[in-house]
Amino acid sequence: MPEYDPLLDGLKEECGVFAVHAPGEDVARLAYFGLYALQHRGQESAGIAVASGDEIRCYKNMGLVTRAFEEKILALMRGDAAVGHVRYSTTGDSVEENAQPVHSRAEREIALGHNGNLVNTATFRENLINDGVKLRSTTDSEVIAEMIARDPAPTVEEAIVGVASKIRGAFSIALLANGRVYAFRDPLGIRPLCIGRLNASGWVVASESCALNIVGAERLRDVEPGEIVAIDRNGPRTVHRLKSERRATCIFEFIYFARPDSYILDRSLYHCRKLMGQTLAAESPAAGDIVISVPDSGTPAAIGFAKASGIPYEEGLIKNRYVGRTFIQPDQRIRSLGIKIKLNPLLETIGGKRVVLVDDSIVRGTTSSQIIGILKEHGAGEVHVRVSSPPVRNPCFYGIDTAEREELLASSRTIEEVQSHIGADSLRYLSIEGMIKSTGLDKSNFCLACFNNDYPIPIPQQLHLTKLSFEDKKKIPAKENLFVNLVKR
Amino acid sequence: MPEYDPLLDGLKEECGVFAVHAPGEDVARLAYFGLYALQHRGQESAGIAVASGDEIRCYKNMGLVTRAFEEKILALMRGDAAVGHVRYSTTGDSVEENAQPVHSRAEREIALGHNGNLVNTATFRENLINDGVKLRSTTDSEVIAEMIARDPAPTVEEAIVGVASKIRGAFSIALLANGRVYAFRDPLGIRPLCIGRLNASGWVVASESCALNIVGAERLRDVEPGEIVAIDRNGPRTVHRLKSERRATCIFEFIYFARPDSYILDRSLYHCRKLMGQTLAAESPAAGDIVISVPDSGTPAAIGFAKASGIPYEEGLIKNRYVGRTFIQPDQRIRSLGIKIKLNPLLETIGGKRVVLVDDSIVRGTTSSQIIGILKEHGAGEVHVRVSSPPVRNPCFYGIDTAEREELLASSRTIEEVQSHIGADSLRYLSIEGMIKSTGLDKSNFCLACFNNDYPIPIPQQLHLTKLSFEDKKKIPAKENLFVNLVKR
Amino acid sequence: MPEYDPLLDGLKEECGVFAVHAPGEDVARLAYFGLYALQHRGQESAGIAVASGDEIRCYKNMGLVTRAFEEKILALMRGDAAVGHVRYSTTGDSVEENAQPVHSRAEREIALGHNGNLVNTATFRENLINDGVKLRSTTDSEVIAEMIARDPAPTVEEAIVGVASKIRGAFSIALLANGRVYAFRDPLGIRPLCIGRLNASGWVVASESCALNIVGAERLRDVEPGEIVAIDRNGPRTVHRLKSERRATCIFEFIYFARPDSYILDRSLYHCRKLMGQTLAAESPAAGDIVISVPDSGTPAAIGFAKASGIPYEEGLIKNRYVGRTFIQPDQRIRSLGIKIKLNPLLETIGGKRVVLVDDSIVRGTTSSQIIGILKEHGAGEVHVRVSSPPVRNPCFYGIDTAEREELLASSRTIEEVQSHIGADSLRYLSIEGMIKSTGLDKSNFCLACFNNDYPIPIPQQLHLTKLSFEDKKKIPAKENLFVNLVKR
Amino acid sequence: MPEYDPLLDGLKEECGVFAVHAPGEDVARLAYFGLYALQHRGQESAGIAVASGDEIRCYKNMGLVTRAFEEKILALMRGDAAVGHVRYSTTGDSVEENAQPVHSRAEREIALGHNGNLVNTATFRENLINDGVKLRSTTDSEVIAEMIARDPAPTVEEAIVGVASKIRGAFSIALLANGRVYAFRDPLGIRPLCIGRLNASGWVVASESCALNIVGAERLRDVEPGEIVAIDRNGPRTVHRLKSERRATCIFEFIYFARPDSYILDRSLYHCRKLMGQTLAAESPAAGDIVISVPDSGTPAAIGFAKASGIPYEEGLIKNRYVGRTFIQPDQRIRSLGIKIKLNPLLETIGGKRVVLVDDSIVRGTTSSQIIGILKEHGAGEVHVRVSSPPVRNPCFYGIDTAEREELLASSRTIEEVQSHIGADSLRYLSIEGMIKSTGLDKSNFCLACFNNDYPIPIPQQLHLTKLSFEDKKKIPAKENLFVNLVKR
Repeated sequence: MPEYDPLLDGLKEECGVFAVHAPGEDVARLAYFGLYALQHRGQESAGIAVASGDEIRCYKNMGLVTRAFEEKILALMRGDAAVGHVRYSTTGDSVEENAQPVHSRAEREIALGHNGNLVNTATFRENLINDGVKLRSTTDSEVIAEMIARDPAPTVEEAIVGVASKIRGAFSIALLANGRVYAFRDPLGIRPLCIGRLNASGWVVASESCALNIVGAERLRDVEPGEIVAIDRNGPRTVHRLKSERRATCIFEFIYFARPDSYILDRSLYHCRKLMGQTLAAESPAAGDIVISVPDSGTPAAIGFAKASGIPYEEGLIKNRYVGRTFIQPDQRIRSLGIKIKLNPLLETIGGKRVVLVDDSIVRGTTSSQIIGILKEHGAGEVHVRVSSPPVRNPCFYGIDTAEREELLASSRTIEEVQSHIGADSLRYLSIEGMIKSTGLDKSNFCLACFNNDYPIPIPQQLHLTKLSFEDKKKIPAKENLFVNLVKR
Repeated sequence: MPEYDPLLDGLKEECGVFAVHAPGEDVARLAYFGLYALQHRGQESAGIAVASGDEIRCYKNMGLVTRAFEEKILALMRGDAAVGHVRYSTTGDSVEENAQPVHSRAEREIALGHNGNLVNTATFRENLINDGVKLRSTTDSEVIAEMIARDPAPTVEEAIVGVASKIRGAFSIALLANGRVYAFRDPLGIRPLCIGRLNASGWVVASESCALNIVGAERLRDVEPGEIVAIDRNGPRTVHRLKSERRATCIFEFIYFARPDSYILDRSLYHCRKLMGQTLAAESPAAGDIVISVPDSGTPAAIGFAKASGIPYEEGLIKNRYVGRTFIQPDQRIRSLGIKIKLNPLLETIGGKRVVLVDDSIVRGTTSSQIIGILKEHGAGEVHVRVSSPPVRNPCFYGIDTAEREELLASSRTIEEVQSHIGADSLRYLSIEGMIKSTGLDKSNFCLACFNNDYPIPIPQQLHLTKLSFEDKKKIPAKENLFVNLVKR
Repeated sequence: MPEYDPLLDGLKEECGVFAVHAPGEDVARLAYFGLYALQHRGQESAGIAVASGDEIRCYKNMGLVTRAFEEKILALMRGDAAVGHVRYSTTGDSVEENAQPVHSRAEREIALGHNGNLVNTATFRENLINDGVKLRSTTDSEVIAEMIARDPAPTVEEAIVGVASKIRGAFSIALLANGRVYAFRDPLGIRPLCIGRLNASGWVVASESCALNIVGAERLRDVEPGEIVAIDRNGPRTVHRLKSERRATCIFEFIYFARPDSYILDRSLYHCRKLMGQTLAAESPAAGDIVISVPDSGTPAAIGFAKASGIPYEEGLIKNRYVGRTFIQPDQRIRSLGIKIKLNPLLETIGGKRVVLVDDSIVRGTTSSQIIGILKEHGAGEVHVRVSSPPVRNPCFYGIDTAEREELLASSRTIEEVQSHIGADSLRYLSIEGMIKSTGLDKSNFCLACFNNDYPIPIPQQLHLTKLSFEDKKKIPAKENLFVNLVKR
Repeated sequence: MPEYDPLLDGLKEECGVFAVHAPGEDVARLAYFGLYALQHRGQESAGIAVASGDEIRCYKNMGLVTRAFEEKILALMRGDAAVGHVRYSTTGDSVEENAQPVHSRAEREIALGHNGNLVNTATFRENLINDGVKLRSTTDSEVIAEMIARDPAPTVEEAIVGVASKIRGAFSIALLANGRVYAFRDPLGIRPLCIGRLNASGWVVASESCALNIVGAERLRDVEPGEIVAIDRNGPRTVHRLKSERRATCIFEFIYFARPDSYILDRSLYHCRKLMGQTLAAESPAAGDIVISVPDSGTPAAIGFAKASGIPYEEGLIKNRYVGRTFIQPDQRIRSLGIKIKLNPLLETIGGKRVVLVDDSIVRGTTSSQIIGILKEHGAGEVHVRVSSPPVRNPCFYGIDTAEREELLASSRTIEEVQSHIGADSLRYLSIEGMIKSTGLDKSNFCLACFNNDYPIPIPQQLHLTKLSFEDKKKIPAKENLFVNLVKR
C-alpha cells in the first residue's frame, strides 16, 4: 500500500554517508549516531559496514536508523572503521537490495556508501553483466562498487583513482577497504562531504557536519571536489586529485536539503538561509503585518526576512511533531483537508492580518496552494508569498528524486501565472544573484541547473531509453529514474 | 532494554482521548487521524473502539498510532461511533494490557478512554476483585470501566452519573455504549476535553481542539467541568452536572502539555504562551543580544520575550527532526555529549553573543544544564535563562508522570542555587501572577499545586503504601505511581 | 530471498476452504481451527471473512494460520457465519493481494474462498477491466468474486448460478453473502468439498473432512459436483445443480494431497492409500527384507505393501519434525547432502538390507534420487522402489502448482530410464487400473489427465499466450501459471 | 497470552548444544543447520556464537532456529569456530536474557552453551553477586559462564577444570574461548554429548548425533562422562577427566527425548525403542487386532510390539503435520475436543477393533485419557495400553521441565488405578529390567531416578526454599524450577 504523504509536493532528499576510522572506539555505534543525525537525507533504509582486520561485516535494513538497528546487531559489529549510509524513501515495496553500503567480496573486499547519481553507468553495467557479475540492485552505487572491487589495478587506491576517473555524475563516496576509510567526491563536488577529527587518532567523514557534531568530532574541512582521501592510523592523506575545470556544488543543499546546522564550503547554512531571507526582503518587500514561515525549512529565511523588513516574525503554522509516515489513507473528507494533517494554522496569529509567507522553494506548488488556502480560510486577510530561491524550471540528474519537467510549476508558467495558480495575493522569488550573494561565495562554485538550465555535466540523450531497456520505468526505484524533474518538498 | 532518551528530564505527557459520533462516516479512520493529532499526549500505545449497532469492536496496539494500526485493521472496524486513546510511554517492556480504550462486556458493553488519574481507586479495585472481577491491567481506567459496566443502575447514563460521583481525581473520559458517545470530566476540570461539530449530523470529542481541526471539525466548546454529555443522532445533550465549588484546570496544559494550536477554556495556547514570554520580559528583562528558545516548546514564549524586549529572536539550537526513540545506548563518548543527539547549537548565531535562553519550564534541570553547557562551549558569551513559568516545587497526583519531589530542582533550592546549578549567568522565572495574567483568565480556574502546593483534591496519606500492597512499586507503570513529582520535559 | 526447500521436488498443494454458519458460536474461531486442520493445503497466506448482520469483515495475512491471526484480530470478527481460506506457498515476495477470501463490496457485498483454477478467465478479466473494475490480484478467484458481486441478477443466488454456469475449470467455493453461506463445486467436482453438521443449528463446509473433525462437526456428505448449496438458519438447501456428463475428481487428492484422515466420495483416503500399497504388492512384488516409506505421505501405502507382501514394515528414514521453511541457504557442503536436512536414514534398519522403498508418487524425481543415494550410502544392499500411483506424464491445469512437462521425469522416459535415473535397483509403478480398484470407485469418477492425458475440460490453445499478454510469465503467481506440469512432492 | 497446547501433558525437552571447529568453513551456517536438527530439544530460543581470531560474536533470538536467524545475521558471523544452543519453550513472556550461548567478556572472553541443570548454583550465584557481577538471567548456565570467565587460573583450560570440579548436577557444555572449542560433561554423563569429524580438519560437537548427520559429519564417539575435551586445529584432545564412581545417563533420552535417529552410548535409539516394544510384547502380551502408536514418539516401540506379537501395525491416529504453537485459545466447544486439534483417529482402522495402543511413557496421563476417549468414540472395541517404559513416579532435578510429584499420575496410584483413570481396558508398563535389557547396556550406565527414586546426585534439602528467596517461584523460568516433577509429553 502506498504511503500517503500530504506534503507529497516535496523534494526527496538523496542519501547520506558517514564513515569513521577510530581503532579502539565502538565505530558501529558512532556510525549509528552519525546516521541518526543524517536521517533527513534518507528514511528508506540504513546500513553500516564495519572493518575488523581484513574482514568487513555489513548489515542493512529498511526503515529509519532507529528501526533498522538494535543493540544486538551492533554487538556483532566490532571493528576499527565503519561506513554507514541512509537512503531516501521511495514508494517501492521492498527494496532492501538497493540499500547501502554495497558490500562486495570480489577481487578485493570493499564496502561503499554513495550519495549522488551517475549519468554514464549504462555501459559499465553492461560490461559487468557481460563479465558474469550478478548485480543484485538497480543502483549505480553497486556498479561503482563492483568496478572498484574487480579493477585489475594492484592496489585499492589505484582502483579507486581509476574508477573515479571514468565515472561521470555526482558522487560523494565513503569506502572501506583494507581497514582504511576512503572518501572521495566527483570533480564538480556536486554533493557535499566533509572530514572531522574525532580525537587524537580518530577521524570522521560525513555528508554534513551535523553528523560530526553528534559524535563529538570537530569539523576540519570539506573533502574537496575531485579529491580522493585515504584515512588510516596516520590520519587523512590525499591520494589523488581528479582534475576539473569548474565546480558545481548543488545549490539546493544551501536552500533546503542539508540541515541548517551544517556547514558546506565553510559556510553556515543557517546563516546563508537567513541572508537569503534578508536579501529577498530587500529585493521584494511586502506590505505585511506579520512574517510567518512554512515550517521548518522556511524558518531561517523567514527570520531573515522579518529582520530586514522590520515586520514581526510569528509562528503561524504549527507542525505536528509526530508526523511520520502513515500508511492509512485519509478518506475523502480528510483528504480534502490535506495539509491539515501536518500543519495547523494559528487563528489568533493570522486572523485579519496581511501575512507574508516565506518558503524556501516552490516545486510542484500543491503544498503552497493548500497552505494559502487554509490561511485564508482561517481569516488571513492577504497572503504574500516570498520564496527564498528562484523559480525551479529544470529537472535534476544528479541524485534528487524529482517530478517530470512538466510537473514543475514554474517550468511553463510566468510568475504571475504561478501566483494565480497557488492563490497568493502576491508572489516574489529571490533572484539568482541575490541567492548567490547570500551564500557569500562566487557563482562558479555552484550547480544552478534547476534554475538556469546550465548543466555542468552533459546528460546523454539516450539515457532515458537506455534505462528503459533493462527495466520497466515504473518499477525503477526513484533514484534510478534520472529523467525526473525537480520537485520541492 | 530501556530506551535512552537524552531529554529524559521531561514531563511525560499523560494521555489523549478522541471520540466521534457520525453515522455514515468512516469513524475508525476519523479516530485514527484524531489520535494522530494527539500523538504528543501519548506514544506508548494507541487504541480505537468502534460501535456498530449493539456491538463494540476494540483494537489496541503498542507504539505510535501510525505503527499501531494498518489499513486492514481499520477495515474491520466499520461503525457509527468510535472512541480512541493514546497512552504515554513508559520504560516498561510490554504493557499492552494497560492500553486503552478499556473494553468491558460485563452487564453492559462499553468502551472507555480516560485521561487523568484518580486518587481513590484502591477501595474500588478491592471491591471489584472481591466481586470476582479479573482485572487485566494496573490502571484505574479499567476500574472506572468495570464499575460502569457492572453498575446496577438501569441505564448506562445513570451508571455513569453514579460512578462519576464516586470517583475522585482527574478524569476526562470518552465512552461508547449503546451506539452513543458519552463524554465527561471531573468536577474540577483538571484535564481538558472539548466538543466539535463534524458536519450536519456528526460530532467529535477530543482532549484538544487540534484533533478537531485535523478531521475538519469545528470546535464548539469545552466539555464543562463536571458535565456529562451524551451524543447521538440528536447531537450533544447534557445528561448531568456534577457539583463542584471550584475549578482546577492543570496550568501545565497552558505552559507545555497541550499543542500550541489547541484552545482550552476558549484561549489560544499559543497566544497565552507568547504572552507569558512578553510578561516575563517585562518582569525580568535581560541584557542580551539575542533571544533563543529551547525548541520547540519554548518558542512561543521566546518570540513573545523578543517582541516585548526588542531583542531579536533567533534560532540558536537546531533540533533533529527525526528524533524518536532510540533503543541503542550511546557509549561513554556520546553520552557525555548528551543533549547533542537532539539539539545542535548554531555557532554563527550564538558566538560571542549574550544569549537570552527562553524555556517554558525547568523540572529536574538536567536538560538546562546541558544546553547551557553546549551554548557556552560553542562560544556564547553569557547565557541568561528566562523561564516562562514559576519554579516547580511540588509533585502532581493527577495524571502526570513526574519525578520524586527530591528530584525537582527547585523543591529545595533557592533560585540563586538553581542558577548556579545549571550554570546560567542569570535565571529568572515568571511569577505566578504574571503567568495567570497571561492566560487572560482568573486564577480560580487553575490547579497550581506544582507551584504553590495548593492541591485541589486532598491526597490520601495512605495512597502510596496502599498501592505498594498489591504490587512492587518498581513494576508499577508510571501512570499508577502517584507519589511521583513533576518533572519537566 | 528464495526459500530453500530440500524437498523441492514436490507438488504444491492448492488451497483449502472452510465455512461455517452457526449463529451464537464464535465463528471466526471455528474458522481458525478449521484452517489449522487444512494447513497442508496452503501455507502462503490465510484469511477469514465474517458476516455480522449485513456487514462482512475480512482479514488476511501472509504465513501459516497460527502466524496470520492473533486473538485481538479474532476479537474484531464477531458474527454469525464465516468463510476461511488457506493459500499455498509460492516463491513470490509479497502477494497479500492474492490472499483470500476475496472481499467485494460492489453491487452486493460478498466474500469468497476458492480452491481450483479456471481455464477461461481471460475474457472475463478483460470484461471487468473494460467495465472499470480495478482488480487487485492476479487470481481468477477475484474474477469470480467480482462477477458475482456485480451480476445484474436480482438475488445473489441467481448471480451465483449465472456465474457458475459460465466459468470453466476447477472450482470448489465457499461464499458469504446476506449472512448466508453458499457452497458450490464445478460440475466435474475436480476439487473436494464437503458439508458437516456442527450442532443443532450449525453447519460447516470444508475442503476436507479433517477440518470438520477438529471443530467437532460430523461429516454429512460431499457437496456434489455442480451442486450449489445455500446454508442459513434453516440448514443446507440445494439451490441449483449444474449439469455435467461426467465427473472428474482429482485422483491426486486420493494419492497425496488430502490428509489421510479425510474422506472424499465417502472413501477413507487412508484406507485407499493402504489398498494402493496392497495392490502394488500384488502387481509388482519385490524381493526385499524390509519395507520402508518416504515419510509421511508414503506411509499408508508402505504399510499396505508390507501387509500384502509379508515383508516387515520398518521406519527407515526419520523426518525432522520441525522442518519448516528455512530462509537460510545451505552452503555447498550441506547442499550436497540435500535431503539430509529433512530426512535421516536409520543405519541399523537399512544396513545390509534389501530395502523396498514405497513412495506415493514420483514427479521430478530429484527427491527419489537423493533418498536412494543416502540409503545406499548408509549401507542399504538394494533399493527397490515401488510407487503407489502410475507415472506422472502430463501437466495439470486445474489448480496444482507443477513443473513444466519437460521436467516431469516420466514424461519422456521409459520406466527403465527412470529407474536408472534415480539409481534404483528396481522400479515399479502401480497400474491405473490397480489405483482405481484401490479406491473402490468407478474410473468415471476421476480426472486422470496427469496419467492418461485425458483432460476432462478442453484447455484453450491460446491460454498460455493470452496470459503472457498481460503479465510477465515469470511474475505470474504459480496458481495462475496454467501451463505448468505435475510435479510430485 | 499463554500458548494453548492440547498436548500439554508432555515432558519439555531440555536444551541442545552444538559446536564446530572448522577454519575455512562457514561455521555459523553449520551451527544453524546443526541446531535445526536439534530443534526438538528446545523451541523457545536459539543462539550462535562465533569466534574470529580473538573476538567472539554472539547472536540470540526468541523462537525456532528458522525464525531466530536470517541470512544477513549469519553474514555478520564469519569465523573459525562456533557454538550454538537451542532452549526449550516456557510460557514466560520474553526471556531473551535467558537465551544461550552465554557470552561473557570478563577476565577472559568466552561463550558457552549448556544442557542440564545444576543443583548447587545458589552459593555460586551469591558469590558472584557479592563480587559485583551483574547477572542478566536466572539461569545457572550464566553462573557457570561467569565463574569460568572470572576464574583466576592462568589458562581457560585450568579455569574449566576448576569450575567443572566444583559444580554439581547435569552439564553437557560446549564452550568457545581463544578460538578453541571446549566440550565437557558432568562426571555422571547425565545429558548426552558426542563428537564427530567434519572433514580433514573440522570437528563437530553436538547433543545428539543427528546434528552431525545433517552437516555431513561422521560420529566419532561420545564425549565421555567427566571428560573435558579441547578442539583446535590439531583436533580433539582430552584435557582432563573428572573422577566419578558411577555413570548416570538419563534413561529418558533413550525412551523419548533424543531423536530416534541419534546414537547415545553407541546405541541406536530407534533400535532400543523398537526393542523396548518387543520386550514389552513379550512381558505383557495383549489380545488385540491391531497395534497403533501415539505418534510420533511411540511409533518405534509400536512397530517392535507388532513384530514380536504378530499383531499387525497400523496407523490409527493421524497427526496434523503443521501443528505448532497456536496463541489462539479454542473456545469451550473445541477445548472439549482437546486432543483432536493435533490427532485425528482413523475410523476405518480402529472401528470395531481391539486396539493395542503403544505409548513410550505416561506422565500426567491427560493425553492418554483423551486419546483413549476419542478412540472409543470412533468405535474402537477395546483399548489396551502398553507403555514402553516403567511408571514415572519421581521428579527430575537434572534439566527436565516437569510437573510436581503430585501431578505424576503413577506417583500415588497403583497400575490398576492408573488404568481406570485413563479409561483403558488394560494397561501394562515395561519393567525396569526389560527396559534396561532393551538398551543392550548395563544398568550402571543410567539414571533411573524417575522410576526407582535412586538419585545419583543428592538434592540439597534447601534448594527449593533457596530459590524462592530470590525470585517468585511463579516467575522462575521453568528450567530453574528444580523441584518440579517428571511429566510426559
